[in-house]
Amino acid sequence: MARQGILIVLSGPSGTGKGTICKELLQQYPNLQYSISATTRPPRVGETDGVNYWFTAPEDFQSMVNNDDLLEWAEVYGNYYGTPRRYVTQTLHSGKDVVLEIDTQGALQIKAKFPQGVFIYIVPPSIGELALRITKRGTDSPEVIEKRLKAAYEELSFAYKYNYVVVNDKVAEATARIVAIITAEKCRVERNTDLIKTICECGSID
Amino acid sequence: MARQGILIVLSGPSGTGKGTICKELLQQYPNLQYSISATTRPPRVGETDGVNYWFTAPEDFQSMVNNDDLLEWAEVYGNYYGTPRRYVTQTLHSGKDVVLEIDTQGALQIKAKFPQGVFIYIVPPSIGELALRITKRGTDSPEVIEKRLKAAYEELSFAYKYNYVVVNDKVAEATARIVAIITAEKCRVERNTDLIKTICECGSID
Repeated sequence: MARQGILIVLSGPSGTGKGTICKELLQQYPNLQYSISATTRPPRVGETDGVNYWFTAPEDFQSMVNNDDLLEWAEVYGNYYGTPRRYVTQTLHSGKDVVLEIDTQGALQIKAKFPQGVFIYIVPPSIGELALRITKRGTDSPEVIEKRLKAAYEELSFAYKYNYVVVNDKVAEATARIVAIITAEKCRVERNTDLIKTICECGSID
Repeated sequence: MARQGILIVLSGPSGTGKGTICKELLQQYPNLQYSISATTRPPRVGETDGVNYWFTAPEDFQSMVNNDDLLEWAEVYGNYYGTPRRYVTQTLHSGKDVVLEIDTQGALQIKAKFPQGVFIYIVPPSIGELALRITKRGTDSPEVIEKRLKAAYEELSFAYKYNYVVVNDKVAEATARIVAIITAEKCRVERNTDLIKTICECGSID
């Protein structure tokens, strides 16, 4: 009876509070599982394999890359990090939803391999406010304004690649919007073809 | 500051309880306006123009049809009924959401003219149960089973034309799912291009 879960991918400019939203989501929504990353980085004190990370030998990580076993991966300061496809699909198969908090590059890699995921871009209301403030107060040089806005511009233009934009005005409200998105996505026709088909296929029995 | 509202179109096989859901939605969700139809039928006692219907002379109705002023229309027992485009767009413009409960034919007419609407197909859990029951109990003739299931089949195959399927197991839960759909739709990137653009366009100011 377990229905396939949904993969939720959260991104957004730094300082958006997406980490806080993610924690809040996991607390409020018991059907949600945080995606555990694989890494070649050695475990730190207190870190447990399968809880904090899947601690993986470099050669095993490389073979996961070769076998397309990672939904996305990246190198950070000489260590590799990635999202194991199998862990995600098994969790979804069990009926649990999976949430992943990741940068835009990683999110776009996942979207290419797993387009049925739900891609949510979180924006702070303060980006708009910041833009207004730094153009209006008139104390910064045009070059500084230009540079700041360009950074915001570039980061925000990625929002178009996502399915949803959630403004993080208040954590509770932003979290509630994401819960609503999950509820709505579970009602989408594309995710309910089995339900409709089951009834429709009965029509051919005689 | 008023943001454009969303047009919500509800359909479903008869007996789904979509009327009850619609009433519940209007009660729970104050930002929602029920779409008032135009009709050439004369008002009955107690009916008010602009409340129950827009009572319209046949020649005026015809000119609305000719001018593409109706999102959909149909003839029922010699009277004409239709959804005035202007009332819907004005209400959406004021920031209110509009809900419309209509048959599949009308919904598909609206979808062709107003694809940015949100099309929700409500199914009773009892259609599936009915299909199982009438095939399993084995008392009906194959012809009767075939006929019944064909009707359910034909009605349900329209569900694929909608954006969402909501199972009406309990009215409160089905209503909550529709409210979640409205909340989620308001976060969709396509509906927030202005928000993103406003910030992005600031980047070109120097």
